Amino acid sequence: MKDFFVADAPRFENSVVTSYFVLSSFQVRDRKQGGQFVSAILTDKTGSLPAVMWDDFADAVAVCTEGCYVKAQGQIARYQGRFQMGLQRLRPAAESEVDAADFLPVTRFDVEEMWTELRGYVSRFTNPDLQRLVFAFLDDPEIAQAYRTAPAAKMLHHAWIGGLLEHVLTLVRVCLATAPFYPEVDADLLVSGAVLHDIGKIRELYWKTSFGYTLEGQLVGHISIAQRMLQEKVRGIEPFPEKLRLLVEHMILSHHGKYEFGSPKLPMTPEALLLNTLDDLEAKMQTLRNAFDAATEQGKGPTEVTDWVRSMERPLFNSQAYLKDSE
Amino acid sequence: MKDFFVADAPRFENSVVTSYFVLSSFQVRDRKQGGQFVSAILTDKTGSLPAVMWDDFADAVAVCTEGCYVKAQGQIARYQGRFQMGLQRLRPAAESEVDAADFLPVTRFDVEEMWTELRGYVSRFTNPDLQRLVFAFLDDPEIAQAYRTAPAAKMLHHAWIGGLLEHVLTLVRVCLATAPFYPEVDADLLVSGAVLHDIGKIRELYWKTSFGYTLEGQLVGHISIAQRMLQEKVRGIEPFPEKLRLLVEHMILSHHGKYEFGSPKLPMTPEALLLNTLDDLEAKMQTLRNAFDAATEQGKGPTEVTDWVRSMERPLFNSQAYLKDSE
Amino acid sequence: MKDFFVADAPRFENSVVTSYFVLSSFQVRDRKQGGQFVSAILTDKTGSLPAVMWDDFADAVAVCTEGCYVKAQGQIARYQGRFQMGLQRLRPAAESEVDAADFLPVTRFDVEEMWTELRGYVSRFTNPDLQRLVFAFLDDPEIAQAYRTAPAAKMLHHAWIGGLLEHVLTLVRVCLATAPFYPEVDADLLVSGAVLHDIGKIRELYWKTSFGYTLEGQLVGHISIAQRMLQEKVRGIEPFPEKLRLLVEHMILSHHGKYEFGSPKLPMTPEALLLNTLDDLEAKMQTLRNAFDAATEQGKGPTEVTDWVRSMERPLFNSQAYLKDSE
Amino acid sequence: MKDFFVADAPRFENSVVTSYFVLSSFQVRDRKQGGQFVSAILTDKTGSLPAVMWDDFADAVAVCTEGCYVKAQGQIARYQGRFQMGLQRLRPAAESEVDAADFLPVTRFDVEEMWTELRGYVSRFTNPDLQRLVFAFLDDPEIAQAYRTAPAAKMLHHAWIGGLLEHVLTLVRVCLATAPFYPEVDADLLVSGAVLHDIGKIRELYWKTSFGYTLEGQLVGHISIAQRMLQEKVRGIEPFPEKLRLLVEHMILSHHGKYEFGSPKLPMTPEALLLNTLDDLEAKMQTLRNAFDAATEQGKGPTEVTDWVRSMERPLFNSQAYLKDSE
Amino acid sequence: MKDFFVADAPRFENSVVTSYFVLSSFQVRDRKQGGQFVSAILTDKTGSLPAVMWDDFADAVAVCTEGCYVKAQGQIARYQGRFQMGLQRLRPAAESEVDAADFLPVTRFDVEEMWTELRGYVSRFTNPDLQRLVFAFLDDPEIAQAYRTAPAAKMLHHAWIGGLLEHVLTLVRVCLATAPFYPEVDADLLVSGAVLHDIGKIRELYWKTSFGYTLEGQLVGHISIAQRMLQEKVRGIEPFPEKLRLLVEHMILSHHGKYEFGSPKLPMTPEALLLNTLDDLEAKMQTLRNAFDAATEQGKGPTEVTDWVRSMERPLFNSQAYLKDSE
Amino acid sequence: MKDFFVADAPRFENSVVTSYFVLSSFQVRDRKQGGQFVSAILTDKTGSLPAVMWDDFADAVAVCTEGCYVKAQGQIARYQGRFQMGLQRLRPAAESEVDAADFLPVTRFDVEEMWTELRGYVSRFTNPDLQRLVFAFLDDPEIAQAYRTAPAAKMLHHAWIGGLLEHVLTLVRVCLATAPFYPEVDADLLVSGAVLHDIGKIRELYWKTSFGYTLEGQLVGHISIAQRMLQEKVRGIEPFPEKLRLLVEHMILSHHGKYEFGSPKLPMTPEALLLNTLDDLEAKMQTLRNAFDAATEQGKGPTEVTDWVRSMERPLFNSQAYLKDSE
Repeated sequence: MKDFFVADAPRFENSVVTSYFVLSSFQVRDRKQGGQFVSAILTDKTGSLPAVMWDDFADAVAVCTEGCYVKAQGQIARYQGRFQMGLQRLRPAAESEVDAADFLPVTRFDVEEMWTELRGYVSRFTNPDLQRLVFAFLDDPEIAQAYRTAPAAKMLHHAWIGGLLEHVLTLVRVCLATAPFYPEVDADLLVSGAVLHDIGKIRELYWKTSFGYTLEGQLVGHISIAQRMLQEKVRGIEPFPEKLRLLVEHMILSHHGKYEFGSPKLPMTPEALLLNTLDDLEAKMQTLRNAFDAATEQGKGPTEVTDWVRSMERPLFNSQAYLKDSE
Repeated sequence: MKDFFVADAPRFENSVVTSYFVLSSFQVRDRKQGGQFVSAILTDKTGSLPAVMWDDFADAVAVCTEGCYVKAQGQIARYQGRFQMGLQRLRPAAESEVDAADFLPVTRFDVEEMWTELRGYVSRFTNPDLQRLVFAFLDDPEIAQAYRTAPAAKMLHHAWIGGLLEHVLTLVRVCLATAPFYPEVDADLLVSGAVLHDIGKIRELYWKTSFGYTLEGQLVGHISIAQRMLQEKVRGIEPFPEKLRLLVEHMILSHHGKYEFGSPKLPMTPEALLLNTLDDLEAKMQTLRNAFDAATEQGKGPTEVTDWVRSMERPLFNSQAYLKDSE
Repeated sequence: MKDFFVADAPRFENSVVTSYFVLSSFQVRDRKQGGQFVSAILTDKTGSLPAVMWDDFADAVAVCTEGCYVKAQGQIARYQGRFQMGLQRLRPAAESEVDAADFLPVTRFDVEEMWTELRGYVSRFTNPDLQRLVFAFLDDPEIAQAYRTAPAAKMLHHAWIGGLLEHVLTLVRVCLATAPFYPEVDADLLVSGAVLHDIGKIRELYWKTSFGYTLEGQLVGHISIAQRMLQEKVRGIEPFPEKLRLLVEHMILSHHGKYEFGSPKLPMTPEALLLNTLDDLEAKMQTLRNAFDAATEQGKGPTEVTDWVRSMERPLFNSQAYLKDSE
Repeated sequence: MKDFFVADAPRFENSVVTSYFVLSSFQVRDRKQGGQFVSAILTDKTGSLPAVMWDDFADAVAVCTEGCYVKAQGQIARYQGRFQMGLQRLRPAAESEVDAADFLPVTRFDVEEMWTELRGYVSRFTNPDLQRLVFAFLDDPEIAQAYRTAPAAKMLHHAWIGGLLEHVLTLVRVCLATAPFYPEVDADLLVSGAVLHDIGKIRELYWKTSFGYTLEGQLVGHISIAQRMLQEKVRGIEPFPEKLRLLVEHMILSHHGKYEFGSPKLPMTPEALLLNTLDDLEAKMQTLRNAFDAATEQGKGPTEVTDWVRSMERPLFNSQAYLKDSE
Repeated sequence: MKDFFVADAPRFENSVVTSYFVLSSFQVRDRKQGGQFVSAILTDKTGSLPAVMWDDFADAVAVCTEGCYVKAQGQIARYQGRFQMGLQRLRPAAESEVDAADFLPVTRFDVEEMWTELRGYVSRFTNPDLQRLVFAFLDDPEIAQAYRTAPAAKMLHHAWIGGLLEHVLTLVRVCLATAPFYPEVDADLLVSGAVLHDIGKIRELYWKTSFGYTLEGQLVGHISIAQRMLQEKVRGIEPFPEKLRLLVEHMILSHHGKYEFGSPKLPMTPEALLLNTLDDLEAKMQTLRNAFDAATEQGKGPTEVTDWVRSMERPLFNSQAYLKDSE
Repeated sequence: MKDFFVADAPRFENSVVTSYFVLSSFQVRDRKQGGQFVSAILTDKTGSLPAVMWDDFADAVAVCTEGCYVKAQGQIARYQGRFQMGLQRLRPAAESEVDAADFLPVTRFDVEEMWTELRGYVSRFTNPDLQRLVFAFLDDPEIAQAYRTAPAAKMLHHAWIGGLLEHVLTLVRVCLATAPFYPEVDADLLVSGAVLHDIGKIRELYWKTSFGYTLEGQLVGHISIAQRMLQEKVRGIEPFPEKLRLLVEHMILSHHGKYEFGSPKLPMTPEALLLNTLDDLEAKMQTLRNAFDAATEQGKGPTEVTDWVRSMERPLFNSQAYLKDSE
């Protein structure tokens, strides 16, 4: 559906193109020489493109709104060294006209495969109660739909469509590889915690045309939302062992590991401790990947550290690239 | 029912008494000269009394358990400067034989009067939805029963039977006195938060024969328990405005005010901020009272500061007593 | 006296206006094509206006100084989308020509009424010594003059002319409403602390044509300044009870509540604790108001949280606007 | 060699026994009734036994020293409820007479098997330089001898003979299980870090007859000691790739993960981050095990949390025991 | 005057002695066999001695008070391994009968010499105003008397009679040695700060028969007390340059260096920074000395570190003793 | 060699100049009207100058690299108020053509004199072993060369050529002046620590044409580098007393004084404590100097505090300038 992406602008300089975008900014401004014009920003998953509309914009102004999809036609030109579009036509676009994946960054893995793999792990549980509980979530059409598209964060690690599922799946794999070394740990319980710990993010975040926090996300947060979702699902599959409910609830409440990260409880059980540790590790490893990619884009060489990474309070260093560089 | 209290021991030296106690400790030990004896600790709200049973204790050992009520008969004597009881008879006591208020410290206010006053404030709400919500809690017989007896803490401030109700009532009064000065604050919403913020303590704590944390209290905590109780009650009075639910939930989740105190959220609304401030003030004022009482018991004079108060990281000073001393 | 304000510029485009301003910046610069010109910034309580003077500026340069009042005449024009003034005349203005309230933000309450109300509370003290002490401050013409105009801060809450008095008055009202619930608290002593706790700000800050810290404010701070002022006033009304001096001094020294906020002492008395709590609450509630106003100006809707508020490390949320929005 | 252990005392009450101990305390004291006696404490891996020697102790005093092995003969008796030994003979014991493992707690795993398994992992390295480096340590007889007996700590986790090897081996296993999930991680480099990160502990600690810190351990610490050992070994196998040296050194310097834990560097490479995470996890899981064992010894039931664990600032909970209890 | 000290008890076993003490504790207790007796603790600078009085203690009870000097006669005996005195006579002692230095630890330097040296430094000031100011303190008989006897702390460093003077004098010496290396530093100003920074301790502490905090010390603290004393003295020598007053005041207010140590201001001038640094160094060096002395008393050898020093969060190590040990 | 410096631009407006620079930035860009041009930044110790090259830049692009020395010829002109150079010729410059001191800020002291003075202090050691050790460093030609030119930091204090030597020399002087007041301190040991504590900076930093961190500096840090250098030098002068090695190593490892500053050990000996204190003082005093200079450049007057100094979390105040202003 979408033939032209923002990143294609250099190849289309001086051409007229037609494509779909998110209308990130949309303002009517005064011209110095009198009269008005429209100044807009068009966005897709490859970047943002400034746009101006000098004439006949009354209709567009009447029907287009910031944050919505639009269909735009105009000429690509360079102004003060940056590309922009001289808009000729602009109208709202229906959701049916666009593929959301064109507008927001998206996981590089196949969602169906990830989903099947995740369900496979649950289907191999030996504890039927935990299996019933987790499937009560995964079989819920509304949850399943959201779980397969939600990002894992607004920014930082896994901030892309499908990021939540990608994050959970890699976490589950490491949980299963690690659990056998700790006889104190019940693998089914651990994996249940891994699948459900971030389930509240599907109500904490919105990710339709951009990523952000819902009001419930701001006032309640994904930990407490998840706890409420747990209660709903348990109610739907009663009788359910109270002991398991309590242990799963504890994993959800403690998975951030520290009070200052918003955990109302610290991990007290072996499963909660392991889940918190591996979840944190998974997030940090993704932060490393992001920082290494950014360094490569900046043209940094293999003997240079990355820029300062604020969330980790240090620069990072790609040891693999450094070792390979010597070959 | 209970004629003799631990604090009465000096007046009964060398007398034989019969009374009810909590059996706080109960052990069979070896005697130096061979044979065995029973060493026990008998507790009521006025203190603890060591006890020994030298003979014929097989039956008592078979039926008495630590933490239960017992009926004991024996002679009060002084041993190494401390009073103890030489047990002649010991048997378990049924709950119907005792008045729980005899065994744990209890509020000095009248529970019925406090309960009536609290309900009165709710009955004067102008917001019918919030009124329905709060009464859904207060009219629940199980909750009402617990709310009227629960302590507000295991130790520290308001650690006595009825302490929760006493704490909430004084908090509500100050909320009502303060709210008019802040036009940003909805008084009904604030009072709803005040009544419900600690409701989770009725499942976090147990207070039958002593004060302590339940397993759910340890693994989940009263904030998250309260959130689940809120969800249950809202479900029972549907339709209920989602906006109010969200704002009440936010007050519960943020009332500790800081992440390091176990709040998963910081207060973001005027009501949540005011509730957190006054709840904290109420607890600290009670801490002052406790410290002043302890200083008086230690025989400290009005120009002396109290002992170091660990929860506040400072000693305290009774300014009123100091000023009156000058008269 | 001042007919034209910076905020009026759009209505006067291309007109010649004459008005008074604070000369916030004043520099002689080289013109690209040779020669020089004057670049200035004119400020009043509604904003800042860039100004240029191309000719005949020698006299103005000789007599005008940054930070002073000036009378300026010139034409309003738009340059690169922003308004500026093409100066034709510029001369210093005497203080008698201007009303300071035109140049700095000012309380929206009536200073005389606030002052009368505040004195009224003191006149109802039952403790004659504390009454003598507080009036020794309020009756001092120099202090009274400063107290009625000082801001409560350079930035943040109550940063406007009359802000100190406004802050203290609302604080005193809440103190009087709250004190009856705490029998440990002496109301006269508490209100004395409320009136005097920030008295040092009249020497810590300057607020003539802009807000800032005096050198004494930087090196000594308002807490220690207030302590010295207390000593001066006590000396002037001797004999004064040493006990009261000590308790008032303690409230001043501890009112910031924590060492890291510059309090050399932590609150140890009931009055000091209550004063610190309510002073902090008052400041935070004002921060909420400021944040809500700013969100409204940014065009945020009632379901959106405010921007991140750095001093409170969170965004805030206007619950009242949110509830009303549903009606 | 050692037939009688401290824990055997109850079975030998009133018997005369002869055995070897560490002389933990040894003092000559005055008797109330005049004259002197020897008061001592005898220790082995099962506990400590007070001992007294009333007569003929001049020779013993002349040749026995605190902290050394002794051979003691005496009668076991009970005094004030505790067992003690009435010493008849006491003389120093040569190291050849005793088995150190009798006197200090010791790993419950087979040291030879662990050592072989560890070397096996290194022998399967694909990177010959890292293999040479690690074997330079493991093949060093002095290091190998110490590595196989050293504890991993003075107190806390793995504080027993063989604890270091046990800790490292379990860490290496988890490293190998986890590394495949992180393509950024070089497994040989990671395992090299796991084997060498705590190597400095063999000079930081002493563990002959008790556990403690050497002077070098106190003034330098095991991280910096390990760094120096690395330099020595690298020098011995030159030429060695500088890049590998730098990356291994970084893992050693950063493995505590935080400055406040004495790490002079924070983990910046994927291997350093993973090593720090899994090392910390390993230590915490061992802390859980210790706490669960202690709770069982205290007679706590499966629905009770452990005592407060100071190093983790929380009580812990044995979820497995809790779940099994329901069956 | 005082012939017998507590530390002499072993040499006087079974003798009757007469001496002066501080009566640290004084209680009438019940005897097991009926009747009462007096239990007391007698203290001097060498330690504390328990005492009992079985008969004829009515007069003693009527006139003796805890915390006062007493003259006591009795027999030294050993009871349960510790020495105690069997009191025969006990009466209050007038201050004129005793030498305070016998009862509290005292500086090992000559107070007169220290005082003369300190005044000498001030007499060599080149700034006559600062000289006038400092002598206004040192020439005040009441201050001089207190300054020459006050300890520098209740516990920790320099907690002995004359400790304040000793601390200040060594600090002044180092200030004078260091100042020449920092041309930004005015030596007279620095030394003025050194002499006056702790002057508030003469009202913060009491040290008559024991060391402790006065009420003013608790509620106000020595920093704010010193500030008030400065104001009093400046008033007495007006006209005094305001600039010097401000800079001296700043040094006093900031000399603890950090908010968490109770400094209401951080050092902003070169003199304030240097004073804070050297004052802190002086205190820490004294802490080292105390720890080294304590280690020697415990019989620790030159290769052992001291016990954990809580105020510095580490053990310490006497490098000199260690180096000498090798000779 | 270098006649024209960036700071000379105003005096050479419209002239053609030829000089040497560091080529800080060098990019080929598209011209709006088609074609390309070179945009560069030329730097020397006095500042940075933008430069453009419109024609014939193919050769320059082929041979010039960012970060290298270049010889440039062009005309100085003013563009949009700032000076820039219109390049006519640009070629790489050999190191032999330039004096590195022209391109980076350099100490204002004579390096030879500082070096001689520093060696003089070492030559007066009474401890021959420490003397041998320190001279093993200072006599090493490679170290000596680096030591005499290295900066003491990338930014902040002493960030200039020769800054390390300047910092160490002033530190040694203060050490020698202070040591006599602390009999616990061995002056030779202290000065050895002062000379060697920052020696790792010669490998942690690079300072050829700009200041920055080496990869080893990032991954290992100057403390651990210094420790390794110490080991190398000790090995070269064996036999060397182990005790001295341990104490010097401890000083190096602990000289940052706190864990959070990257010290793996806290100062435990008197020398380590004194070194840490004076090193920190020296850095802070230099920070004050820098802030005072910056304030002067900003045109601040003697009654104004400096801008907020982030590393010290406060503004600073030049008391000397303030006092002199009054004369």
